[in-house]
Amino acid sequence: MRVGIIGTGMVGQTLGSKLVSLGHQVTLGSRSKDNEKGLAWAEEAGPDGHTGTFAEAAAFGEVVLNATGGTVSLEALRAAGAENLDGKLLIDISNPLVFGPDGQVSLDPVNTDSVGERIQREFPGARVVKTLNTVNRELMVAPEKLAGEHNLFVAGNDEAAKAETVALLGEFGWPAEWIIDLGDIAGARATEMMMPFWLRVMGSLGTAEFNYRIQRAG
Amino acid sequence: MRVGIIGTGMVGQTLGSKLVSLGHQVTLGSRSKDNEKGLAWAEEAGPDGHTGTFAEAAAFGEVVLNATGGTVSLEALRAAGAENLDGKLLIDISNPLVFGPDGQVSLDPVNTDSVGERIQREFPGARVVKTLNTVNRELMVAPEKLAGEHNLFVAGNDEAAKAETVALLGEFGWPAEWIIDLGDIAGARATEMMMPFWLRVMGSLGTAEFNYRIQRAG
Repeated sequence: MRVGIIGTGMVGQTLGSKLVSLGHQVTLGSRSKDNEKGLAWAEEAGPDGHTGTFAEAAAFGEVVLNATGGTVSLEALRAAGAENLDGKLLIDISNPLVFGPDGQVSLDPVNTDSVGERIQREFPGARVVKTLNTVNRELMVAPEKLAGEHNLFVAGNDEAAKAETVALLGEFGWPAEWIIDLGDIAGARATEMMMPFWLRVMGSLGTAEFNYRIQRAG
Repeated sequence: MRVGIIGTGMVGQTLGSKLVSLGHQVTLGSRSKDNEKGLAWAEEAGPDGHTGTFAEAAAFGEVVLNATGGTVSLEALRAAGAENLDGKLLIDISNPLVFGPDGQVSLDPVNTDSVGERIQREFPGARVVKTLNTVNRELMVAPEKLAGEHNLFVAGNDEAAKAETVALLGEFGWPAEWIIDLGDIAGARATEMMMPFWLRVMGSLGTAEFNYRIQRAG
Protein backbone atom coordinates (compact mmCIF):
# COMPACT_ATOMS: atom_id res chain seq x y z
CA MET A 1 0.00 0.00 0.00
CA ARG A 2 1.13 3.57 -0.62
CA VAL A 3 0.97 5.80 2.46
CA GLY A 4 1.45 9.57 2.56
CA ILE A 5 2.50 11.00 5.90
CA ILE A 6 1.96 14.69 6.56
CA GLY A 7 4.75 15.75 8.92
CA THR A 8 8.41 14.76 9.22
CA GLY A 9 8.65 14.96 13.02
CA MET A 10 9.37 12.03 15.31
CA VAL A 11 5.81 10.68 15.05
CA GLY A 12 5.82 10.79 11.25
CA GLN A 13 9.26 9.17 11.07
CA THR A 14 8.34 6.41 13.51
CA LEU A 15 5.16 5.55 11.62
CA GLY A 16 6.94 5.81 8.29
CA SER A 17 9.72 3.44 9.32
CA LYS A 18 7.25 0.90 10.68
CA LEU A 19 5.19 1.04 7.48
CA VAL A 20 8.28 0.53 5.32
CA SER A 21 9.32 -2.41 7.50
CA LEU A 22 5.86 -3.90 6.88
CA GLY A 23 6.40 -3.69 3.12
CA HIS A 24 4.49 -0.50 2.36
CA GLN A 25 5.67 2.46 0.31
CA VAL A 26 5.83 5.72 2.20
CA THR A 27 6.26 9.38 1.31
CA LEU A 28 6.94 11.71 4.20
CA GLY A 29 5.69 15.20 3.39
CA SER A 30 6.91 18.52 4.68
CA ARG A 31 6.50 22.20 3.91
CA SER A 32 9.48 22.19 1.56
CA LYS A 33 10.88 19.46 -0.69
CA ASP A 34 14.37 19.74 0.79
CA ASN A 35 13.38 19.31 4.42
CA GLU A 36 16.46 17.89 6.12
CA LYS A 37 14.62 15.57 8.48
CA GLY A 38 12.62 14.16 5.58
CA LEU A 39 15.69 13.60 3.42
CA ALA A 40 17.63 11.95 6.25
CA TRP A 41 14.69 9.68 7.00
CA ALA A 42 14.24 8.68 3.34
CA GLU A 43 17.91 7.84 2.99
CA GLU A 44 17.75 5.56 6.02
CA ALA A 45 14.41 4.05 5.01
CA GLY A 46 15.73 2.74 1.69
CA PRO A 47 13.97 2.39 -1.65
CA ASP A 48 10.44 2.32 -0.23
CA GLY A 49 10.87 5.58 1.72
CA HIS A 50 10.41 8.87 -0.10
CA THR A 51 10.13 12.50 0.82
CA GLY A 52 8.32 15.40 -0.78
CA THR A 53 6.01 18.33 -0.21
CA PHE A 54 2.77 18.00 1.75
CA ALA A 55 0.94 17.88 -1.61
CA GLU A 56 3.26 15.22 -3.05
CA ALA A 57 2.90 13.05 0.05
CA ALA A 58 -0.90 13.33 0.01
CA ALA A 59 -1.09 12.65 -3.73
CA PHE A 60 1.18 9.62 -3.28
CA GLY A 61 -0.85 8.00 -0.53
CA GLU A 62 -3.81 5.70 -0.92
CA VAL A 63 -4.01 6.36 2.81
CA VAL A 64 -2.86 9.64 4.40
CA LEU A 65 -1.69 10.06 8.00
CA ASN A 66 -1.71 13.47 9.67
CA ALA A 67 1.32 13.46 11.94
CA THR A 68 1.70 17.21 12.35
CA GLY A 69 1.13 19.09 15.58
CA GLY A 70 -2.56 19.78 16.07
CA THR A 71 -2.18 23.55 16.08
CA VAL A 72 -0.73 23.53 12.54
CA SER A 73 -2.58 20.54 11.06
CA LEU A 74 -5.18 22.48 9.10
CA GLU A 75 -2.56 24.68 7.50
CA ALA A 76 -0.50 21.63 6.52
CA LEU A 77 -3.55 19.84 5.08
CA ARG A 78 -4.54 22.92 3.11
CA ALA A 79 -1.07 22.81 1.58
CA ALA A 80 -1.58 19.09 0.93
CA GLY A 81 -4.70 20.00 -1.04
CA ALA A 82 -8.31 18.81 -0.83
CA GLU A 83 -7.98 17.20 -4.28
CA ASN A 84 -5.24 14.94 -2.89
CA LEU A 85 -7.38 13.88 0.08
CA ASP A 86 -10.77 13.30 -1.58
CA GLY A 87 -12.17 9.85 -0.94
CA LYS A 88 -9.10 8.77 1.01
CA LEU A 89 -8.79 7.43 4.52
CA LEU A 90 -7.17 10.28 6.48
CA ILE A 91 -5.93 9.13 9.87
CA ASP A 92 -5.50 12.05 12.25
CA ILE A 93 -3.03 11.47 15.07
CA SER A 94 -2.64 15.06 16.22
CA ASN A 95 -3.11 16.77 19.57
CA PRO A 96 -3.50 20.56 19.62
CA LEU A 97 -1.06 21.27 22.43
CA VAL A 98 -0.31 24.88 23.30
CA PHE A 99 2.69 25.41 25.58
CA GLY A 100 2.19 28.43 27.82
CA PRO A 101 4.96 30.68 29.12
CA ASP A 102 4.31 29.28 32.62
CA GLY A 103 5.00 25.73 31.49
CA GLN A 104 1.30 24.90 31.60
CA VAL A 105 -0.08 23.01 28.63
CA SER A 106 -3.52 23.72 27.20
CA LEU A 107 -5.41 22.72 24.07
CA ASP A 108 -6.74 24.78 21.15
CA PRO A 109 -9.32 23.84 19.96
CA VAL A 110 -10.95 22.15 22.94
CA ASN A 111 -14.24 21.27 24.61
CA THR A 112 -16.72 22.23 21.88
CA ASP A 113 -14.49 21.40 18.92
CA SER A 114 -11.39 19.38 18.05
CA VAL A 115 -8.73 19.07 15.36
CA GLY A 116 -10.37 15.89 14.11
CA GLU A 117 -13.71 17.63 13.62
CA ARG A 118 -12.13 20.69 12.02
CA ILE A 119 -10.31 18.51 9.51
CA GLN A 120 -13.48 16.60 8.66
CA ARG A 121 -15.44 19.87 8.23
CA GLU A 122 -12.82 21.50 6.04
CA PHE A 123 -12.19 18.35 3.96
CA PRO A 124 -15.63 16.74 3.65
CA GLY A 125 -14.34 14.46 0.87
CA ALA A 126 -11.78 12.87 3.17
CA ARG A 127 -12.77 9.96 5.40
CA VAL A 128 -11.25 11.15 8.68
CA VAL A 129 -10.52 8.75 11.55
CA LYS A 130 -9.02 9.96 14.81
CA THR A 131 -6.76 7.46 16.52
CA LEU A 132 -3.30 6.82 18.03
CA ASN A 133 -3.22 10.27 19.70
CA THR A 134 -3.50 8.71 23.17
CA VAL A 135 -0.14 6.89 23.20
CA ASN A 136 3.47 7.89 22.69
CA ARG A 137 5.04 7.26 19.31
CA GLU A 138 6.95 4.13 20.31
CA LEU A 139 3.85 2.37 21.60
CA MET A 140 1.95 3.33 18.44
CA VAL A 141 3.93 0.78 16.48
CA ALA A 142 4.95 -1.58 19.30
CA PRO A 143 2.01 -2.21 21.64
CA GLU A 144 3.74 -5.40 22.82
CA LYS A 145 6.05 -3.19 24.91
CA LEU A 146 3.33 -3.30 27.56
CA ALA A 147 2.20 -6.63 28.97
CA GLY A 148 -1.40 -7.68 28.55
CA GLU A 149 -4.31 -5.86 26.98
CA HIS A 150 -4.39 -2.10 26.66
CA ASN A 151 -6.57 0.00 24.43
CA LEU A 152 -6.72 2.32 21.48
CA PHE A 153 -9.72 4.34 20.37
CA VAL A 154 -11.12 5.27 16.98
CA ALA A 155 -13.59 8.02 16.14
CA GLY A 156 -14.98 8.89 12.72
CA ASN A 157 -18.12 9.29 10.64
CA ASP A 158 -17.29 6.57 8.09
CA GLU A 159 -17.64 2.98 9.30
CA ALA A 160 -15.59 1.53 6.45
CA ALA A 161 -12.81 4.02 7.16
CA LYS A 162 -12.77 2.92 10.79
CA ALA A 163 -12.58 -0.74 9.73
CA GLU A 164 -9.64 0.05 7.41
CA THR A 165 -7.97 1.88 10.31
CA VAL A 166 -8.43 -1.09 12.63
CA ALA A 167 -6.85 -3.31 9.96
CA LEU A 168 -3.84 -0.98 9.64
CA LEU A 169 -3.49 -0.83 13.44
CA GLY A 170 -3.54 -4.62 13.36
CA GLU A 171 -0.42 -4.51 11.19
CA PHE A 172 1.18 -2.34 13.88
CA GLY A 173 0.40 -5.06 16.42
CA TRP A 174 -2.93 -3.90 17.87
CA PRO A 175 -5.50 -6.73 18.05
CA ALA A 176 -8.90 -5.55 16.80
CA GLU A 177 -10.49 -6.40 20.15
CA TRP A 178 -8.21 -3.90 21.89
CA ILE A 179 -9.66 -1.05 19.84
CA ILE A 180 -12.74 0.74 21.16
CA ASP A 181 -15.00 2.61 18.75
CA LEU A 182 -15.99 5.95 20.27
CA GLY A 183 -18.51 6.79 17.56
CA ASP A 184 -18.50 9.76 15.23
CA ILE A 185 -15.67 12.23 14.66
CA ALA A 186 -16.83 14.37 17.61
CA GLY A 187 -15.22 11.60 19.65
CA ALA A 188 -11.93 13.25 18.65
CA ARG A 189 -12.79 15.86 21.27
CA ALA A 190 -12.78 13.16 23.92
CA THR A 191 -9.38 11.71 23.10
CA GLU A 192 -7.68 15.06 22.45
CA MET A 193 -8.90 16.19 25.88
CA MET A 194 -7.05 13.27 27.51
CA MET A 195 -3.72 14.88 26.73
CA PRO A 196 -3.50 16.97 29.95
CA PHE A 197 -4.18 13.78 31.91
CA TRP A 198 -1.60 11.84 29.89
CA LEU A 199 1.02 14.50 30.65
CA ARG A 200 0.24 14.41 34.37
CA VAL A 201 0.43 10.61 34.49
CA MET A 202 3.73 10.73 32.61
CA GLY A 203 5.03 13.21 35.17
CA SER A 204 3.88 11.01 38.02
CA LEU A 205 5.26 7.73 36.63
CA GLY A 206 8.41 9.27 35.16
CA THR A 207 7.92 7.48 31.85
CA ALA A 208 5.87 7.83 28.65
CA GLU A 209 5.71 4.07 28.33
CA PHE A 210 2.20 3.49 29.60
CA ASN A 211 -1.25 3.28 28.16
CA TYR A 212 -4.88 3.20 29.19
CA ARG A 213 -6.68 -0.04 29.69
CA ILE A 214 -10.43 0.07 30.09
CA GLN A 215 -11.12 -2.32 32.95
CA ARG A 216 -14.61 -3.84 32.79
CA ALA A 217 -16.69 -6.00 35.08
CA GLY A 218 -16.49 -9.79 34.89
CA MET B 1 -14.98 10.40 62.08
CA ARG B 2 -17.53 13.11 61.30
CA VAL B 3 -18.02 13.76 57.58
CA GLY B 4 -19.99 16.58 56.01
CA ILE B 5 -21.20 15.98 52.48
CA ILE B 6 -22.18 18.94 50.34
CA GLY B 7 -24.93 17.72 48.02
CA THR B 8 -27.83 15.28 48.47
CA GLY B 9 -27.77 13.80 44.97
CA MET B 10 -27.01 10.20 44.14
CA VAL B 11 -23.25 10.67 44.58
CA GLY B 12 -23.66 12.28 48.01
CA GLN B 13 -26.13 9.62 49.14
CA THR B 14 -23.93 6.76 47.94
CA LEU B 15 -20.86 8.13 49.72
CA GLY B 16 -22.89 8.95 52.82
CA SER B 17 -24.35 5.45 53.09
CA LYS B 18 -20.93 3.86 52.65
CA LEU B 19 -19.41 6.11 55.32
CA VAL B 20 -22.21 5.29 57.77
CA SER B 21 -21.75 1.58 57.07
CA LEU B 22 -18.06 2.03 57.92
CA GLY B 23 -18.97 3.50 61.31
CA HIS B 24 -18.63 7.20 60.54
CA GLN B 25 -21.10 9.96 61.33
CA VAL B 26 -22.40 11.80 58.29
CA THR B 27 -24.39 14.97 57.67
CA LEU B 28 -25.70 15.43 54.14
CA GLY B 29 -26.06 19.12 53.36
CA SER B 30 -28.42 20.81 50.96
CA ARG B 31 -29.64 24.28 50.14
CA SER B 32 -32.56 24.01 52.55
CA LYS B 33 -32.88 22.10 55.81
CA ASP B 34 -36.05 20.31 54.70
CA ASN B 35 -34.63 18.89 51.47
CA GLU B 36 -36.71 15.77 50.79
CA LYS B 37 -33.86 13.69 49.39
CA GLY B 38 -31.73 14.53 52.42
CA LEU B 39 -34.49 13.69 54.90
CA ALA B 40 -35.30 10.41 53.16
CA TRP B 41 -31.63 9.44 53.12
CA ALA B 42 -31.15 10.30 56.82
CA GLU B 43 -34.17 8.24 57.82
CA GLU B 44 -32.82 5.23 55.98
CA ALA B 45 -29.26 5.77 57.18
CA GLY B 46 -30.21 5.47 60.86
CA PRO B 47 -28.79 7.28 63.90
CA ASP B 48 -25.42 8.10 62.29
CA GLY B 49 -26.98 9.79 59.26
CA HIS B 50 -28.07 13.41 59.53
CA THR B 51 -29.21 16.12 57.21
CA GLY B 52 -28.92 19.90 57.32
CA THR B 53 -27.97 23.00 55.40
CA PHE B 54 -24.73 23.26 53.45
CA ALA B 55 -23.31 25.27 56.39
CA GLU B 56 -24.47 22.73 58.98
CA ALA B 57 -22.96 19.85 57.01
CA ALA B 58 -19.63 21.65 56.58
CA ALA B 59 -19.53 22.70 60.26
CA PHE B 60 -20.30 19.10 61.28
CA GLY B 61 -17.54 17.51 59.24
CA GLU B 62 -13.95 17.01 60.25
CA VAL B 63 -13.70 16.12 56.58
CA VAL B 64 -15.94 17.68 53.92
CA LEU B 65 -16.84 16.09 50.56
CA ASN B 66 -18.06 18.21 47.67
CA ALA B 67 -20.61 16.03 45.88
CA THR B 68 -22.45 18.78 44.03
CA GLY B 69 -22.43 19.26 40.27
CA GLY B 70 -19.31 21.11 39.21
CA THR B 71 -21.19 24.05 37.72
CA VAL B 72 -22.83 24.86 41.10
CA SER B 73 -20.06 23.78 43.48
CA LEU B 74 -18.67 27.23 44.24
CA GLU B 75 -22.11 28.59 45.04
CA ALA B 76 -22.80 25.64 47.36
CA LEU B 77 -19.44 26.01 49.10
CA ARG B 78 -20.00 29.74 49.58
CA ALA B 79 -23.23 28.83 51.33
CA ALA B 80 -21.29 26.27 53.37
CA GLY B 81 -19.02 29.10 54.51
CA ALA B 82 -15.26 29.51 54.46
CA GLU B 83 -15.20 29.46 58.28
CA ASN B 84 -16.63 25.92 58.19
CA LEU B 85 -13.97 24.74 55.72
CA ASP B 86 -10.83 26.32 57.15
CA GLY B 87 -8.08 23.83 57.84
CA LYS B 88 -10.23 20.89 56.78
CA LEU B 89 -9.64 18.27 54.16
CA LEU B 90 -12.10 19.14 51.38
CA ILE B 91 -12.44 16.32 48.87
CA ASP B 92 -13.80 17.57 45.55
CA ILE B 93 -15.56 14.93 43.44
CA SER B 94 -17.28 17.24 40.98
CA ASN B 95 -17.23 17.48 37.20
CA PRO B 96 -18.44 20.73 35.58
CA LEU B 97 -20.69 19.16 32.95
CA VAL B 98 -22.78 21.45 30.78
CA PHE B 99 -25.50 19.73 28.77
CA GLY B 100 -26.08 21.51 25.46
CA PRO B 101 -29.40 21.67 23.62
CA ASP B 102 -27.92 19.37 20.94
CA GLY B 103 -27.18 16.65 23.50
CA GLN B 104 -23.47 17.46 23.36
CA VAL B 105 -21.73 17.68 26.70
CA SER B 106 -19.03 20.25 27.41
CA LEU B 107 -17.19 21.48 30.49
CA ASP B 108 -17.11 24.89 32.19
CA PRO B 109 -14.47 25.64 33.41
CA VAL B 110 -12.03 23.73 31.24
CA ASN B 111 -8.52 23.69 29.76
CA THR B 112 -6.93 26.61 31.65
CA ASP B 113 -8.89 26.20 34.88
CA SER B 114 -10.95 23.63 36.77
CA VAL B 115 -13.47 23.38 39.58
CA GLY B 116 -10.81 21.96 41.86
CA GLU B 117 -8.53 24.95 41.30
CA ARG B 118 -11.36 27.44 41.67
CA ILE B 119 -12.36 25.93 45.00
CA GLN B 120 -8.77 26.02 46.25
CA ARG B 121 -8.38 29.65 45.15
CA GLU B 122 -11.63 30.80 46.72
CA PHE B 123 -11.10 28.81 49.94
CA PRO B 124 -7.35 29.03 50.56
CA GLY B 125 -7.84 27.77 54.13
CA ALA B 126 -9.29 24.47 52.92
CA ARG B 127 -6.99 21.61 51.97
CA VAL B 128 -8.56 20.64 48.64
CA VAL B 129 -7.97 17.23 47.07
CA LYS B 130 -9.53 16.27 43.75
CA THR B 131 -10.39 12.62 43.40
CA LEU B 132 -13.12 10.05 42.60
CA ASN B 133 -14.46 12.16 39.71
CA THR B 134 -13.26 9.61 37.14
CA VAL B 135 -15.55 6.72 38.16
CA ASN B 136 -19.27 6.26 38.55
CA ARG B 137 -20.76 6.46 42.03
CA GLU B 138 -21.10 2.72 42.55
CA LEU B 139 -17.45 2.04 41.81
CA MET B 140 -16.41 4.89 44.13
CA VAL B 141 -17.34 2.77 47.12
CA ALA B 142 -17.03 -0.72 45.60
CA PRO B 143 -13.88 -0.98 43.45
CA GLU B 144 -14.04 -4.76 43.83
CA LYS B 145 -16.85 -4.74 41.25
CA LEU B 146 -14.10 -4.79 38.63
CA ALA B 147 -11.58 -7.62 38.58
CA GLY B 148 -7.91 -6.81 39.08
CA GLU B 149 -6.17 -3.50 39.50
CA HIS B 150 -7.68 -0.27 38.26
CA ASN B 151 -6.75 3.24 39.23
CA LEU B 152 -7.85 6.40 40.96
CA PHE B 153 -6.07 9.72 40.89
CA VAL B 154 -5.49 12.43 43.47
CA ALA B 155 -4.44 16.04 42.91
CA GLY B 156 -3.88 18.70 45.54
CA ASN B 157 -1.38 21.15 46.98
CA ASP B 158 -1.23 19.62 50.48
CA GLU B 159 0.67 16.35 50.78
CA ALA B 160 -0.86 15.46 54.16
CA ALA B 161 -4.34 16.07 52.76
CA LYS B 162 -3.60 13.68 49.91
CA ALA B 163 -2.36 11.04 52.36
CA GLU B 164 -5.56 11.42 54.42
CA THR B 165 -7.57 11.06 51.20
CA VAL B 166 -5.71 7.89 50.25
CA ALA B 167 -6.48 6.49 53.71
CA LEU B 168 -10.20 7.28 53.34
CA LEU B 169 -10.23 5.75 49.86
CA GLY B 170 -8.63 2.70 51.46
CA GLU B 171 -11.71 2.37 53.67
CA PHE B 172 -13.80 2.39 50.49
CA GLY B 173 -11.74 -0.54 49.21
CA TRP B 174 -9.07 1.20 47.12
CA PRO B 175 -5.55 -0.12 47.86
CA ALA B 176 -3.06 2.75 48.22
CA GLU B 177 -0.96 1.36 45.37
CA TRP B 178 -3.91 1.76 42.98
CA ILE B 179 -3.95 5.50 43.56
CA ILE B 180 -1.77 7.70 41.34
CA ASP B 181 -0.72 11.14 42.59
CA LEU B 182 -1.04 13.67 39.76
CA GLY B 183 0.64 16.48 41.66
CA ASP B 184 -0.80 19.85 42.59
CA ILE B 185 -4.42 20.94 42.36
CA ALA B 186 -3.98 21.97 38.71
CA GLY B 187 -4.12 18.21 38.12
CA ALA B 188 -7.87 18.62 38.66
CA ARG B 189 -7.93 20.04 35.15
CA ALA B 190 -6.58 16.75 33.82
CA THR B 191 -9.16 14.49 35.47
CA GLU B 192 -12.13 16.81 34.86
CA MET B 193 -11.17 16.83 31.17
CA MET B 194 -11.47 13.04 31.04
CA MET B 195 -15.24 13.29 31.39
CA PRO B 196 -16.01 13.62 27.63
CA PHE B 197 -13.90 10.49 27.09
CA TRP B 198 -15.63 8.67 29.94
CA LEU B 199 -19.03 9.46 28.42
CA ARG B 200 -17.95 8.21 24.98
CA VAL B 201 -16.55 4.98 26.44
CA MET B 202 -19.77 4.48 28.40
CA GLY B 203 -21.74 4.94 25.17
CA SER B 204 -19.53 2.45 23.37
CA LEU B 205 -19.55 -0.24 26.09
CA GLY B 206 -23.17 0.32 27.10
CA THR B 207 -22.28 0.41 30.79
CA ALA B 208 -20.88 2.82 33.36
CA GLU B 209 -19.22 -0.06 35.17
CA PHE B 210 -15.68 0.40 33.92
CA ASN B 211 -12.58 2.23 35.01
CA TYR B 212 -9.17 3.24 33.77
CA ARG B 213 -6.16 1.13 34.45
CA ILE B 214 -2.77 2.61 33.69
CA GLN B 215 -0.89 -0.21 32.02
CA ARG B 216 2.87 0.03 32.45
CA ALA B 217 5.86 -1.80 31.03
CA GLY B 218 7.18 -4.90 32.78
